[in-house]
Amino acid sequence: MSQTTCTIPKGNKEIGKKVYEYINTLTKPVGSLGKLEGLAVTLAEMKNEDFPSVTPPGVLVFAADHGITNEGVSAYPQAVTEQMVRNFLNGGAAINVFSRQIGAHLSIIDIGVVTDIDHPDLVTNKIRYGTANFYQEDAMTRKEAEQAMEVGFEQASRILDKGAQCLILGEMGIGNTTASSAILAVLSNRDVSSVVGAGTGISGEKLVQKIAIIKEALMRRNPNPYDPIDILAKVGGLEIAGMTGAMLAAASKRVPILVDGFICTVAALLAKEISPNAADYMIVTHQSQEPGHHIAISLLKKEPILDLGLRLGEGTGAALAYPIIQSATLMLKEMATFDSAGISKKD
Amino acid sequence: MSQTTCTIPKGNKEIGKKVYEYINTLTKPVGSLGKLEGLAVTLAEMKNEDFPSVTPPGVLVFAADHGITNEGVSAYPQAVTEQMVRNFLNGGAAINVFSRQIGAHLSIIDIGVVTDIDHPDLVTNKIRYGTANFYQEDAMTRKEAEQAMEVGFEQASRILDKGAQCLILGEMGIGNTTASSAILAVLSNRDVSSVVGAGTGISGEKLVQKIAIIKEALMRRNPNPYDPIDILAKVGGLEIAGMTGAMLAAASKRVPILVDGFICTVAALLAKEISPNAADYMIVTHQSQEPGHHIAISLLKKEPILDLGLRLGEGTGAALAYPIIQSATLMLKEMATFDSAGISKKD
Repeated sequence: MSQTTCTIPKGNKEIGKKVYEYINTLTKPVGSLGKLEGLAVTLAEMKNEDFPSVTPPGVLVFAADHGITNEGVSAYPQAVTEQMVRNFLNGGAAINVFSRQIGAHLSIIDIGVVTDIDHPDLVTNKIRYGTANFYQEDAMTRKEAEQAMEVGFEQASRILDKGAQCLILGEMGIGNTTASSAILAVLSNRDVSSVVGAGTGISGEKLVQKIAIIKEALMRRNPNPYDPIDILAKVGGLEIAGMTGAMLAAASKRVPILVDGFICTVAALLAKEISPNAADYMIVTHQSQEPGHHIAISLLKKEPILDLGLRLGEGTGAALAYPIIQSATLMLKEMATFDSAGISKKD
Repeated sequence: MSQTTCTIPKGNKEIGKKVYEYINTLTKPVGSLGKLEGLAVTLAEMKNEDFPSVTPPGVLVFAADHGITNEGVSAYPQAVTEQMVRNFLNGGAAINVFSRQIGAHLSIIDIGVVTDIDHPDLVTNKIRYGTANFYQEDAMTRKEAEQAMEVGFEQASRILDKGAQCLILGEMGIGNTTASSAILAVLSNRDVSSVVGAGTGISGEKLVQKIAIIKEALMRRNPNPYDPIDILAKVGGLEIAGMTGAMLAAASKRVPILVDGFICTVAALLAKEISPNAADYMIVTHQSQEPGHHIAISLLKKEPILDLGLRLGEGTGAALAYPIIQSATLMLKEMATFDSAGISKKD
């Protein structure tokens, strides 16, 4: 794994200070653009530029299946992963709609769907046909987890080389809130019940069952909390590993990562565990409805931009927040200063 | 005032129900796009269409001066109103930047700046050279308030006739948080101190003085709380009246109104007082930092979309929220259904 262990520099706080001072010369009361101003500073620190750009954005959606669905943890049958991949390829899913809206290049990557999908627009990088059922055995081998991260790293490098100025990561995988809750329980050292939610829409007895399955599975698999690759291998998912690898690639190139919902934020936590500086390149775009998301966000020490009650995944929340992040860069680049506009200062 | 008393129909709840059911057939777990789904329903009710569009947006910024600035209520000198109008005309203000970003047609209307501004792109509809100091006398006559509303109504009609599919209202007027707080104190029957904030950035003694000035002025002017035009005339502002009139025009044409911050929301409350159905066409786009904004929003019985800590005005918060409102319409128009995509339903 030579690539994913590459060096990630810290964000440049010096340029951030300079940009902060510049923002205070723009034609508006100091601080009056609220969170936009902090975003502009953060983006400058990430990109090491006075006038950072996030245009155009790139979107990578990693799709994979989960053996844990055998335990009845999801509201939808496993076949929906493949069906949704086909929906992505036909342009009919929410992430297609929002990607078109923001002018993003969107790539769909089969990193481990249980069936073969033949489509010219699909990037096929299958590590295996779905993970194993981690209630019964390790989700994958350590080597497979590393390979999945490597795929993510390569796919992100590819889209960034093509010119994407920020990276949105999305996922599709029936059962992946179960894997994400398991990972987060390990990383946060919290009780499983506090990090498990409805996913795509279970409740009552099924939710109780989901919690019990994860609890028991964690006892059986016993992942090493200080070894993120071990966690991924034992209770993780291929698309989660892919997103983690992609984030490490973006961070190593100083490209802003627009972190989406629960599953994506768990992937972000793993990337931070692997390389702490990676967190300097992450923007948490929204607070989702999934209860564990709040815990994952606070472990990342970030504040979400939006709170729209989303719980879809696919990268949709990040795509919805993108225009606001773009606004922050345009504020910096295009607004006049008090001096250039000849406007009086405060009394 | 024949035009501004025109009939405003209620939003069509029937079509809203139909759209709500349609959203539940789209390829995503039910309810998983959160507030976006409610927005799509609301927009359909407003426009009386199954697939409402908000593209392109129109932005009107009304500028006027306030005699009350003589009482030292603002952080900036009155000259900044004119200087900022020139900044708008040169394209250097925040609302210019965000209007360009969202592809909006932007119009700047001088409805009462104290100086004459000669510029080919400025719409000059001056009712008077600033309001009178309402600490000493009525801000304007009842007729002037009506004329200012009429200007707003006409300007909105013009931009809607040109094809704008939703309307963003902005304002510029040093001193206008003072007028807005006075109006809101009357409409909400709350203590003045609960509806007064820093505006463009006053604090300490100046804030105490602002509260005292408004309290005393309200006793002296004694506006009739059940007569919105009387409130506007006695303690209001020309740009506030303009926004109110513009909102009545948009509502009468079933065009969604994207309500911005504190001052704009106060104008929205006045429009609702004049014609209660007008509120059916309003979307509150964000929660600003100005403390009275929360009270004004709750009187409108709305929930804001964004909470970015803004306190700039000009329509900037509404422009920042526009892409999310557009996303709601695109979700409706472009997403595949479970049937059309051949995707399995919940287990």
